[in-house]
Amino acid sequence: MSGNTFGTLFRLTSFGESHGPALGCIVDGCPPGFMLSAEDIQPFLNKRKPGQSRYTTQRRELDEVQILSGVFEGRTTGTPIALLIENTDQRSRDYAEIKDLFRPGHADFTYHHKYGHRDYRGGGRSSARETAARVAAGAIAQLYLQRNLGIVSEQEISKNDFFCPNSTQISELAALIEALRRQGDSVGARVKIIARNVPIGLGEPVYEKLDAVLAAAMMSINAVKGVEIGAGFSAVSQLGSEHRDQMSKQGFLSNHAGGILGGISTGQDIEVSIALKPTSSITTPAQTLNTSGEEVTVVTKGRHDPCVGIRAVPIAEAMMALVLMDFYLRQKAIK
Amino acid sequence: MSGNTFGTLFRLTSFGESHGPALGCIVDGCPPGFMLSAEDIQPFLNKRKPGQSRYTTQRRELDEVQILSGVFEGRTTGTPIALLIENTDQRSRDYAEIKDLFRPGHADFTYHHKYGHRDYRGGGRSSARETAARVAAGAIAQLYLQRNLGIVSEQEISKNDFFCPNSTQISELAALIEALRRQGDSVGARVKIIARNVPIGLGEPVYEKLDAVLAAAMMSINAVKGVEIGAGFSAVSQLGSEHRDQMSKQGFLSNHAGGILGGISTGQDIEVSIALKPTSSITTPAQTLNTSGEEVTVVTKGRHDPCVGIRAVPIAEAMMALVLMDFYLRQKAIK
Amino acid sequence: MSGNTFGTLFRLTSFGESHGPALGCIVDGCPPGFMLSAEDIQPFLNKRKPGQSRYTTQRRELDEVQILSGVFEGRTTGTPIALLIENTDQRSRDYAEIKDLFRPGHADFTYHHKYGHRDYRGGGRSSARETAARVAAGAIAQLYLQRNLGIVSEQEISKNDFFCPNSTQISELAALIEALRRQGDSVGARVKIIARNVPIGLGEPVYEKLDAVLAAAMMSINAVKGVEIGAGFSAVSQLGSEHRDQMSKQGFLSNHAGGILGGISTGQDIEVSIALKPTSSITTPAQTLNTSGEEVTVVTKGRHDPCVGIRAVPIAEAMMALVLMDFYLRQKAIK
Amino acid sequence: MSGNTFGTLFRLTSFGESHGPALGCIVDGCPPGFMLSAEDIQPFLNKRKPGQSRYTTQRRELDEVQILSGVFEGRTTGTPIALLIENTDQRSRDYAEIKDLFRPGHADFTYHHKYGHRDYRGGGRSSARETAARVAAGAIAQLYLQRNLGIVSEQEISKNDFFCPNSTQISELAALIEALRRQGDSVGARVKIIARNVPIGLGEPVYEKLDAVLAAAMMSINAVKGVEIGAGFSAVSQLGSEHRDQMSKQGFLSNHAGGILGGISTGQDIEVSIALKPTSSITTPAQTLNTSGEEVTVVTKGRHDPCVGIRAVPIAEAMMALVLMDFYLRQKAIK
Repeated sequence: MSGNTFGTLFRLTSFGESHGPALGCIVDGCPPGFMLSAEDIQPFLNKRKPGQSRYTTQRRELDEVQILSGVFEGRTTGTPIALLIENTDQRSRDYAEIKDLFRPGHADFTYHHKYGHRDYRGGGRSSARETAARVAAGAIAQLYLQRNLGIVSEQEISKNDFFCPNSTQISELAALIEALRRQGDSVGARVKIIARNVPIGLGEPVYEKLDAVLAAAMMSINAVKGVEIGAGFSAVSQLGSEHRDQMSKQGFLSNHAGGILGGISTGQDIEVSIALKPTSSITTPAQTLNTSGEEVTVVTKGRHDPCVGIRAVPIAEAMMALVLMDFYLRQKAIK
Repeated sequence: MSGNTFGTLFRLTSFGESHGPALGCIVDGCPPGFMLSAEDIQPFLNKRKPGQSRYTTQRRELDEVQILSGVFEGRTTGTPIALLIENTDQRSRDYAEIKDLFRPGHADFTYHHKYGHRDYRGGGRSSARETAARVAAGAIAQLYLQRNLGIVSEQEISKNDFFCPNSTQISELAALIEALRRQGDSVGARVKIIARNVPIGLGEPVYEKLDAVLAAAMMSINAVKGVEIGAGFSAVSQLGSEHRDQMSKQGFLSNHAGGILGGISTGQDIEVSIALKPTSSITTPAQTLNTSGEEVTVVTKGRHDPCVGIRAVPIAEAMMALVLMDFYLRQKAIK
Repeated sequence: MSGNTFGTLFRLTSFGESHGPALGCIVDGCPPGFMLSAEDIQPFLNKRKPGQSRYTTQRRELDEVQILSGVFEGRTTGTPIALLIENTDQRSRDYAEIKDLFRPGHADFTYHHKYGHRDYRGGGRSSARETAARVAAGAIAQLYLQRNLGIVSEQEISKNDFFCPNSTQISELAALIEALRRQGDSVGARVKIIARNVPIGLGEPVYEKLDAVLAAAMMSINAVKGVEIGAGFSAVSQLGSEHRDQMSKQGFLSNHAGGILGGISTGQDIEVSIALKPTSSITTPAQTLNTSGEEVTVVTKGRHDPCVGIRAVPIAEAMMALVLMDFYLRQKAIK
Repeated sequence: MSGNTFGTLFRLTSFGESHGPALGCIVDGCPPGFMLSAEDIQPFLNKRKPGQSRYTTQRRELDEVQILSGVFEGRTTGTPIALLIENTDQRSRDYAEIKDLFRPGHADFTYHHKYGHRDYRGGGRSSARETAARVAAGAIAQLYLQRNLGIVSEQEISKNDFFCPNSTQISELAALIEALRRQGDSVGARVKIIARNVPIGLGEPVYEKLDAVLAAAMMSINAVKGVEIGAGFSAVSQLGSEHRDQMSKQGFLSNHAGGILGGISTGQDIEVSIALKPTSSITTPAQTLNTSGEEVTVVTKGRHDPCVGIRAVPIAEAMMALVLMDFYLRQKAIK
């Protein structure tokens, strides 16, 4: 229980179901005196929100964030910052049919067995809608890290609907998505998050190593099934003579470590890749059970999201920022 | 700071450097009345300890564990259990040369910058020696889960030096290791940990999802660069119609989810795979800097470990058990 | 930083300044399936709110609570419950004068030095207004404990404006309060909170003993300067032969321990007393400094609250309930 | 469960029963580069240990502390520091009689019901022997605070067996103790701990206010039944015009607040007083039950400790230091 808090000094606690009145969070531990407004946070949410490209789900939420506390005369006070996002486009009737089904690949089965009583509409708290709160909180961290440390995440990826850094791939991706939509199917995605200008020394070995906490942060995002740092799984077949990053007076000669050694940042780019599974909510029927143990068929009606991975990008950026912010503050305690 | 505690109800706090007097830990929150002795724990440590096969490092430690508290008349009292393992084979003179070097691929560079003053001998706390404490603590969890829930990890793998489930591969692996030793090089490894008979309902969404905490637990192990659950990174290119695990009256028809949906255990086998990088301590020289910023060459003398991944198996089992134990207790609080 | 979270399994995180848009909290870890509505919580807030008797402050807040998540079809889902209370009667103009003063006995001085930038209106987060969130969260705990365990707090005290169990004292108290109001002064208060029907076994020695956590819970309430359990400070001069609670077949023969031995509940009534200081916001002028270091005089205008202690009663009940709820869940993990 | 960890950044986890092999702790989060040796810590333990004056218990323990990790070449490395104290004078035979009794005023009853299986010898973990680990950990904090911030606790009290600041009272106290010993009885004690030179700004409102955490820290010490800050319970009958500490250019004009306002240190002396109950282990017989529910008589044989409060002084100092150290590090994260 109480698994809805993340972080030690810069701490996020979130709430909200897909079809409840609202989502939101409390961000505790933001240093005081930092300039912050809802308008600063909104663009981060806009990058995440549904219905903004023809490649993603068509639920249309405004995702307007309000700041309810922790800011006075435009600057943070060091007291907890509450962020609220109201749900406006729930369409609860779309889910009434599936209230007694266990949709394959979704958390219906596990929530039913763990909690007994669950909000089945849109997956309740298991829905990716919950990530809006993370993105709002992560926005504060990103702004702070940018302004104070120059830590940035890749920006040019926002210029296309796929967050793809290689513009030559866009049309191919678009064609793939369209084909999947017509087939009634979906595909997974791989997302890479890079943080630059990270100071050396962030991370708290041995259980709160930077890579360990990043792994948890990313794995906690809906649909993530794998996390790797630097060379990641390719290190399995690498030779030691290849993998280790040697050094010269110019600095490190490579970055297979992905910016982390011994669980602590090296000053090199932190490179994290995640694997997202394909959504199970597709128009192709699936076989499953209902809550009475009977075999039934389930199918998603209407438009579906052929690749949820696209939407994970701003969420992964948010989680990266939240982790770095927390470790940044923890490192200050030593100096 | 203070990143050496793991778990919420079943909580491990560990200490110890590679060349310090001892390693150990405190396990807090073990239910009372459980039969436990040092003899119960020792086999788990023996499975881990160095010098027991010709394929791994030749440091010879007895790794004898002592129980200093928390057990009375052979059963746990519910009070903290302290485990102590004395270091006996430090050979500190082997490291005097490298005290001012940053060995590539090791944590020397990051520990130097984060802490300033570090125990350079054998990597100090960044050494994999630290994992002996985890294995000792994990033994308690494994014994409890086995006896109370029948949760086991794969046993037959212990019958060969590689923990390899496929006996036909042994000679090939042996040849590879020998070749690498002669080359003065090393290779990474992939390890898969499976837990069976896990009850449904373990995990605390959204930040302490079972897979998220497992990811952190595994990533915190030395040399781990990637963690995946179930289909993992192969889910990136899977179709939704393939990936999702459908259900019939016989139960789930597949297990691409790896036993976890929505961050909660489904009752299916929990399957976690990890990627371990090749060790950087090889007899092939490497280029690096010393603490004065001068370019120097570093090389490991004598025998080296061509594949550290082999030794990660009992450590990964220990981490799996620690995580499951903690979530098992947390789930009891709801029922 | 991040000191706004309370509890381990039943966890409260709160936010809100006296003059911000709203106050509220997230309650994480409430067991699922529990019947809960805003109407269930409101009476607890009404017992606390200002302006309801002529003996307390005249700020008139509706303190209407809304549930934003964690409840579906009238019952909890086991997901975080967000509670929101909007501020409606701020009267910010009353505070513009004192923005640069350090009101004696208030937190202005410490908040100024710790945070630099502070919301001075009504004391910002240091205001007792913040306790509305605690009372709302505590209501959930009180309801759960009542219905599931029959744990109650003293009810008849609500029948008079002073929460006084001895009706013969009411007129004397009323006269005292009136006299203080005319004098422009205030007085402290002593409040005793009793919990009945508490099961044996709650508390987690040695640092999270039940009495230790209760002490922190109570001391965290505004104006509290002392906490005692059972005999408390009178135990200083008690003889051992008097203090110790002997036992017979009828049970304990006394309760100097206040229901707690070795940090664990004994099954007897838990008796906690707290000392509240007199408010410093009185119409008698005081000498202080402003933020420029100049000596100035400060005075509260208009009506003041001669005894803030009266309002602490429902807050102390809330904290008692929050602590017992958390330990109740933690104890379930052992059994 | 797992209530044996204290602190957030400067974190203590302890273990050990009265009659087990050893006691000890892990101190995690001590800043690196700090000069530390077992010889630095020993005097703090000597101030606490039994058998050193004729006024306290006659168990003779060497209480020799060993440092097992976290220190290299005389300075801390920033990694966890393990401290070990072996038990040498257990005399287990003294307790065999009472294994099935619930000694009044002791934790036997509650431990029996909470844990089922308990180490009854000397009270097991409920024994004050456990506080040796706290004193050892607190020594590190005290040394750090002294050297880095000049924060000291009252030293001259160590010059007499009662830690009494007023030498004219010594003979009276000695006579009282002797009389109680002859009577076969005991008395409580009041101890006041003062910390000087504490910087402004320590404390994390609202639940981790400095006074709240100090209250928990002190209440967690065996035999403590009350904690007060500054004016404490005398504030109940104080007028607001008296209690509030006014300010002039010379600073605060009084210190009824005890150095804490709004849960944050003001820079004034932090003054905490605690109430300790009289020990129940006296030579006067008491009536109680055994584990079979039968009425029995229990009595302590031989010499007893007429006033346990005397020994609480170094423990209370340790707890004060641990709390201040943790908040000192947390405050650095903001600046």
